[in-house]
Amino acid sequence: MDFSKLNGLIPAVIQDGATREVLMVGFMNQAALDKTVETGFATFFSRTRNTLWTKGETSGNRLQVDRILVDCDDDTLLLMVTRLGDGNVCHTGERTCFFRSFEASGGYRESGANSPQS
Amino acid sequence: MDFSKLNGLIPAVIQDGATREVLMVGFMNQAALDKTVETGFATFFSRTRNTLWTKGETSGNRLQVDRILVDCDDDTLLLMVTRLGDGNVCHTGERTCFFRSFEASGGYRESGANSPQS
Repeated sequence: MDFSKLNGLIPAVIQDGATREVLMVGFMNQAALDKTVETGFATFFSRTRNTLWTKGETSGNRLQVDRILVDCDDDTLLLMVTRLGDGNVCHTGERTCFFRSFEASGGYRESGANSPQS
Repeated sequence: MDFSKLNGLIPAVIQDGATREVLMVGFMNQAALDKTVETGFATFFSRTRNTLWTKGETSGNRLQVDRILVDCDDDTLLLMVTRLGDGNVCHTGERTCFFRSFEASGGYRESGANSPQS
């Protein structure tokens, strides 16, 4: 893997292997990737806390890694997972971190005539 | 959106809205996001060429953005798209950039006993 483009990190997209929902995106350094492969549970590098964290280590909502795919230029991973625990991946209690539309997030105050939603 | 965590960039996951395949991950700055919303076609910031690029601008395989979702902490986007042209998103001619397993990419030479694939 090419960790050079983001100062030692690569994005890892987490997708539910059964429903195909995209659940979250985290970042991995080499150690996080190693731990993910060794344990079979998705482990990331926290940019804010500057440490490894295994998703669900406190909540029990771990992500069992069933398959890892690599993109064409070796700088991004796609992890197909099974959700454990109550299956809610987001720290807000939602099933996925992507639970808001761009508009609802306040991204733009008004939709333009040519916006993707028109 | 919070562009501060990656020096002005956020990752954007591209997912086929029909098949739910994850097709690629690109990076957007504010200008790329603005252009994506204005035109309705996925536009990224190229880290290697230091410029905006609209996916498919030369190949014709543009990505029509049907829906944009925002993650819980406003630092990642998920774009649900319709593939135009021949529908092959990867520059290698593959349908998706994630066409190799981690093992096939040479990520690790041998699978350990506790690897996710065991």
